[in-house]
Order: sequence, then C-alpha cells, then structure tokens
Amino acid sequence: MSNAIQDKKRPFKGHQARHFGFETDADGRVATITLNRPEKKNPLTFDSYEELADLFRSLRWASDVRTVVLTGADNNFSSGGDVFEIIEPLTRMTMPDLLTFTRMTGDLVRQMRACPQPILAAVDGICAGAGAILAMASDYRLATPEAKTAFLFTRVGLAGADMGACGILPRIIGQGRAAELLFTGRVMTAAEGHAWGFYNGLHDRAALLDETRRFAGNLADGPWFAHSMTKKMLDQEWSMGIEEMIESEAQAQAICMATGDFRRAFEAFAAKAKPDFKGD
Amino acid sequence: MSNAIQDKKRPFKGHQARHFGFETDADGRVATITLNRPEKKNPLTFDSYEELADLFRSLRWASDVRTVVLTGADNNFSSGGDVFEIIEPLTRMTMPDLLTFTRMTGDLVRQMRACPQPILAAVDGICAGAGAILAMASDYRLATPEAKTAFLFTRVGLAGADMGACGILPRIIGQGRAAELLFTGRVMTAAEGHAWGFYNGLHDRAALLDETRRFAGNLADGPWFAHSMTKKMLDQEWSMGIEEMIESEAQAQAICMATGDFRRAFEAFAAKAKPDFKGD
Amino acid sequence: MSNAIQDKKRPFKGHQARHFGFETDADGRVATITLNRPEKKNPLTFDSYEELADLFRSLRWASDVRTVVLTGADNNFSSGGDVFEIIEPLTRMTMPDLLTFTRMTGDLVRQMRACPQPILAAVDGICAGAGAILAMASDYRLATPEAKTAFLFTRVGLAGADMGACGILPRIIGQGRAAELLFTGRVMTAAEGHAWGFYNGLHDRAALLDETRRFAGNLADGPWFAHSMTKKMLDQEWSMGIEEMIESEAQAQAICMATGDFRRAFEAFAAKAKPDFKGD
Repeated sequence: MSNAIQDKKRPFKGHQARHFGFETDADGRVATITLNRPEKKNPLTFDSYEELADLFRSLRWASDVRTVVLTGADNNFSSGGDVFEIIEPLTRMTMPDLLTFTRMTGDLVRQMRACPQPILAAVDGICAGAGAILAMASDYRLATPEAKTAFLFTRVGLAGADMGACGILPRIIGQGRAAELLFTGRVMTAAEGHAWGFYNGLHDRAALLDETRRFAGNLADGPWFAHSMTKKMLDQEWSMGIEEMIESEAQAQAICMATGDFRRAFEAFAAKAKPDFKGD
Repeated sequence: MSNAIQDKKRPFKGHQARHFGFETDADGRVATITLNRPEKKNPLTFDSYEELADLFRSLRWASDVRTVVLTGADNNFSSGGDVFEIIEPLTRMTMPDLLTFTRMTGDLVRQMRACPQPILAAVDGICAGAGAILAMASDYRLATPEAKTAFLFTRVGLAGADMGACGILPRIIGQGRAAELLFTGRVMTAAEGHAWGFYNGLHDRAALLDETRRFAGNLADGPWFAHSMTKKMLDQEWSMGIEEMIESEAQAQAICMATGDFRRAFEAFAAKAKPDFKGD
Repeated sequence: MSNAIQDKKRPFKGHQARHFGFETDADGRVATITLNRPEKKNPLTFDSYEELADLFRSLRWASDVRTVVLTGADNNFSSGGDVFEIIEPLTRMTMPDLLTFTRMTGDLVRQMRACPQPILAAVDGICAGAGAILAMASDYRLATPEAKTAFLFTRVGLAGADMGACGILPRIIGQGRAAELLFTGRVMTAAEGHAWGFYNGLHDRAALLDETRRFAGNLADGPWFAHSMTKKMLDQEWSMGIEEMIESEAQAQAICMATGDFRRAFEAFAAKAKPDFKGD
C-alpha cells in the first residue's frame, strides 16, 4: 500500500463517541455502536444523526474495524427521531432548513451504505421511525421475538418516503408489504419480519448481542476486503440492467482475484489450513 | 391554495359511471369502483378500459376522494378482457390498431399509478388476465380464500408482458415466482398470494368489502396528502440508484414537513388529541 | 419467414456436446443439458464454461428446441469452478487475463438470459459456486429436498459479486436474504430455497427430472414464441421506470398479437380445440 494511503488509515480501537456508545473487541476488528439513551428508548437527535454519519464516513479509513454491530441499550433498538427534540423544531423551520435536515438524515443512510464494513443490526424491543430506517439500511439484521419494527412517519403526518425507505424497503420485503407498512406505520412483528426476509434470524434477548457479534466475528475472520466489494456491488447494481451488472461483476471480481487474500485462500485450501486474510 | 388550482378541483360524490359501478361514502372520501357484469364474471371491455383510465386520470382533481376501493360484483373480481368482445377483434386488427389497444390498456395501469389516491383491491373469486393486472396495479390487496388469481395471457397465445406485468409482478412476489406465473398462466391460490406478499391479508367473503373499506377509511382519516407522496415515491424510485433515492426522499419529505398537516399532527400529538388532516 | 432468416435456422436434435451431455426429446423440442463429471460432482472448467456459452448463444437459431432443461449427473447439480483446474491457475494470472476469465464466466449468464428458450434447472445435491449461479440464471427451478445451494465465492477469498449474483439474486429472494448468502457462502437449504422463492417446487429425487421435463414439455406445447417474449421482457424491464415498462409491454404484446399463434389460439378456444403453436 502506498504511504499516502497508509497515512490516512487510522485505528478506531479506543475511539470515543459523544452521543452514543462505541466500543471494539480486543483487536479492534468488530466495532459495536450502541444507541444509549434508554430512558427515552434510544431516540435519535440532531447531534446523534450527525455524529453517526460522520463515524460511518470516517470508517472507510479504519485500519482495524472490519464489521460494525449496531444495537440499542436496555432492550430497545431505537425510538427514532424524538418528537419534542426533533419533530417540534421541524414544524417551525423554513424550507431550506427542512431540506438541510432531511438531507442530513438521508446522509446517515448514505454513509452506512458507503462504508466498506458490513453493518449488522441487533434489534430488540422498539425499532421505530428513523430507528427502523437504521435497521433497514444495515446489511444483516437479527432480532428478538419482542422486536417491534414500525416505519411510523405517517403517524406524524409525514410520508413513508424518509431516508430511502420507499426505494430500499420494497427490495427487502416486496413492494406490496412495504407499501402497507409505509402507508399505515403499523408494527411489523418479529415473526413477520423474519418470514418476509427483513430479519435474517430471531434469537432470545439473552443471546441476541452475542449471536450478532459471533456473526460479525466470522465475517471479520473472512475475506473482509472481498466482503467490502460484495457490499459495494449489492448497492452499485441496484438500478443497473442485466448486461451492465455482468460486466460490473466481471471487473469487481477480477479485482478480488488480484489480491493476496485470494492467493492465500487457495494456498490454505490446498494445505487444508485456515487462511489468514490481510485485506491486501 | 390559489384560485386557479382550486377551480380545477371538483367533487366525485354523486359521480355516475357508465361501464362499472361508482359510489362514495357519505362525505365522498372513500370511493368504491365495482366491476359489475357478474353474468360474465365482470370482464373488461374496450369501453370499460377507457372509462376506468379516464376516471383515474380525473381523480387527481378530486376535492373529496382520498382512497379508492376496487372490487367486483357477485363474488368475482374480474375475468379480464372478454374473449369474444376483445380477443376476437384483436385477431383481425392492423399493427397500428393493436398498438393503440395495448397502449390503451397500459394507460389504465399508468393512470392507476399516477392518481394520488391509494387504490385498495378487494379480490374474491376469479381474478384473471387484465383483472389480475388491476389487482397488481393497486396499492394494497385483500382477498378471500376463494380468490383465484391468474396472469393467463399465455393461454390465448400471448406473452406475459401485458400492462407492465413483467416489470411490476416480480417486485411484489419475486422474480422466480413471477416468471412461473407469467410463463404458465396458472392460478396463484389465495394462500400462495398471501404467503408471497401479493395479498396483504385474507378475509372471509362476508367480511372482505367491509375490511377493505375500513382500511380505506383509516387511510382517509390519516395524512392523505402525505400518503399521496408515499405512493408517488414508491413508483418514482422504482429504477433509481440508492444515491438518487436518498436525495429524492429528502426533497419529498421536506415538502411534507412544510404542510399544515404536519404541524397539526405534532400539535395533536402534544395535546394527546386526534389530528385533523386537511391536505394543505 | 424470409429465406435469409430461414437459412440461419438449424436443428439441434442430434447435436453432440463435448464437455457435457446434450440430448433432445424425440422431436427436438425439449433439450436437456447434463453436467456430467459426477466423480467431481460436475464441476465447471474453462472448456465447459465456453462451450455452454457457445451453445446458449447458438440456440437463438434453433429450428426445433423450445425449452432447455439443465441438470447434473448422479444426484448432484454442480460443484462450480473446480478448485485445482480453475482457482489455482487464476491465482497466477495477470489482470487482463483475470478479466478475460470473469468476462467469459459472465458471458455464460448473459447467453443463458439472451437465448429465447426458457431454461429450467433440475437441482439435486450439491449446487455450489458457479453451479448455484447457473441455477440462479435459469428461468424456473425445481429441486429435491437434498439440494444444497451455496454461493460460496467468499470461501475462496472472493466477493459474492460473481456472474451477476449481487444484482440477480436479490430480485429472486430479497435483498436481505441475498446479502446473507453472498457474505457468508452458507448453504441455502432446499426448504429455505422453496420458502424464499428461489425454487419453484420440490420433488423427490426419483421424480425430479421427469417433473422438470413435464414442465418443459408443457411450455413447448404452448405459445413458445410468446414465451420467448415473456423471457425477454422480464430481463428487458429489469431497470426501467414504470412509464417505460408500460410502453415496452404495449409494443411487445402488440408484436405477439400480430402472430398466427395468437389467431390460432383464439380459433382453437372458440372451437374448444387444442391450439397448435407454430411460432409464426
């Protein structure tokens, strides 16, 4: 790696977040973000939106973090934008300020999708409004049977078109189910979420975070540079035609085949050993 | 609202349709369209295609209607294009006339998608051919266990590519299931339709229309201007990339945040009262 | 049909393949391709990739074949690219050669999608890597309960972005489930594959090939020119907006309405007879 690129890299182990919890495992490979205002069910605020977006943006330069676990404190994921801290001020803003706000919240989704690390949501209890969006914008979602997921923008007089929901949610659970959730704001139960493909699995409350971190650790042990390419291409091909998808993947996979990780994976396979993925 | 726009608005309560039933509830907020040639299981004809498209087109100027229920008379939804009234003449048409016909039928789907009101299909019995398309082009679908839904164009020697089915159906039930239904024309049972996300719910025949109207009434009681934006964005983002979706929703939601409906919804929330949505 | 076009047509009955099995039914309408290196669970090789792509490319000029069954010998579908015959050489190639390889494999998917015949995969046992891609790129998929389907590129240090998987798989089973399979390379069980819409049905091992051929025969008995248009439009509309989809289908269906097949289908319907589809 050239020195110029190397110089931009930095470790996130030990990073301190101001408006949510941030910690990593011993070697910094798996980071955990915890929305942690449990007395209000972990709402998002102007400050936490911005700091979250900044964090995900800066993670592209991480020298250590390979996967991110996103969760909430005390048996709730997130209640979304706080009614009095966010909704009330919005009712008094000018149009340019409103657009600045909706672009700021949208930017959080953009940065979650743009960072190279797969993001794994661990969802318990309330997962509502912008909280449901954070789960939706993650790459993998586990929940407890008690998870209550609601895209409830309509309940405050708004459209379901928030932070990309009208485009992203239908690709996860189908156009008809997404329309119902976005028009009504009703709770999607954990069982529905699992049956419909929103949640990849359900675990008891006691096991949820461990299971999510175990999954995150497995990804971190694997070819994490290649994983970052999988994530990129899942988004990149969103609105491509089939012809363009095929050429794009030919290029993306050729890049992965030129890595030392690929060669080492083959050598480990041939030697019946465990490969060591270095991301180069 | 400016006078010029206001002048274009008109009520649909009392509107008389010629080739199908049309009625509204007491205040005109929920309209019900009933395909009503039950002796032939409510087929579509050249006339009803055109009148339906015209009705949905003009509904954008409705001063009263907020949601539309679409159903069929006497325990069937619709048998689709009548074989002798539609198929036979088509076998004798010139290419320009054929294209005029297929564009006219496609225009019905276009107008259903373009009108601001969510369209809620109540499907019982036969739902076939263009009838299945009308259900597909709706925003929400309830059915009875007896509903038999078939995209049976192939049975008259045609492609499944009719009125948008090859593009829309896969987004609702998945590409593989849609391909099977479109290649074979086979019946999708109500249970399959529910499990696959085509139908949002199943109800007994005796309850179907009431349940659909209850749902329609709930949407009409809600932020119906915002609902119209949700509907618009679900379509508008169909083939956008993720970046464009996020910016589009930032704009769309900022528009909704600038409405009195949004402010009144917050005020009602703060006062623990029921908001009154006025669409302004 | 003009002589110039007619001259390019040729029968595939009796065609001999070198790197896999190829046979047709008595009148050449249903072709069966069998991946047949059972001692290694039917891997793909440089040679078989290329010959498969060539075969699907040339099938557009078939005078006889109307549907293609794709299967594997001895209770396995395909183990994908062979580790020693394919992976090892790739670890030593230059970037231009790598890109030539990924474009060659992508070309197989392109030709499977471009050929007019619906491709029906009959999947038993191992269906892994490029083998899973071949199933994914088919139009209809049946499996046995023993089918083990894995997009396991990540297991050799590569991205899930291979031959179109990051774009196509999410449209079949949903974005969240596809992401999990592509990040982990884990087996999708037959039951999952069926519940998620990847497999259209499950059959016992003894019945699988017969059921697939029966389905293929039914399609071949039907309006196969129209089927080819259904296949084309399912792909063609992949990334279109709703407006463009509707116009595209108006044109595509008008073409089908101008065929003798359509007229004969109506005449047979009116006479309560079985139509004879000639593809003209």
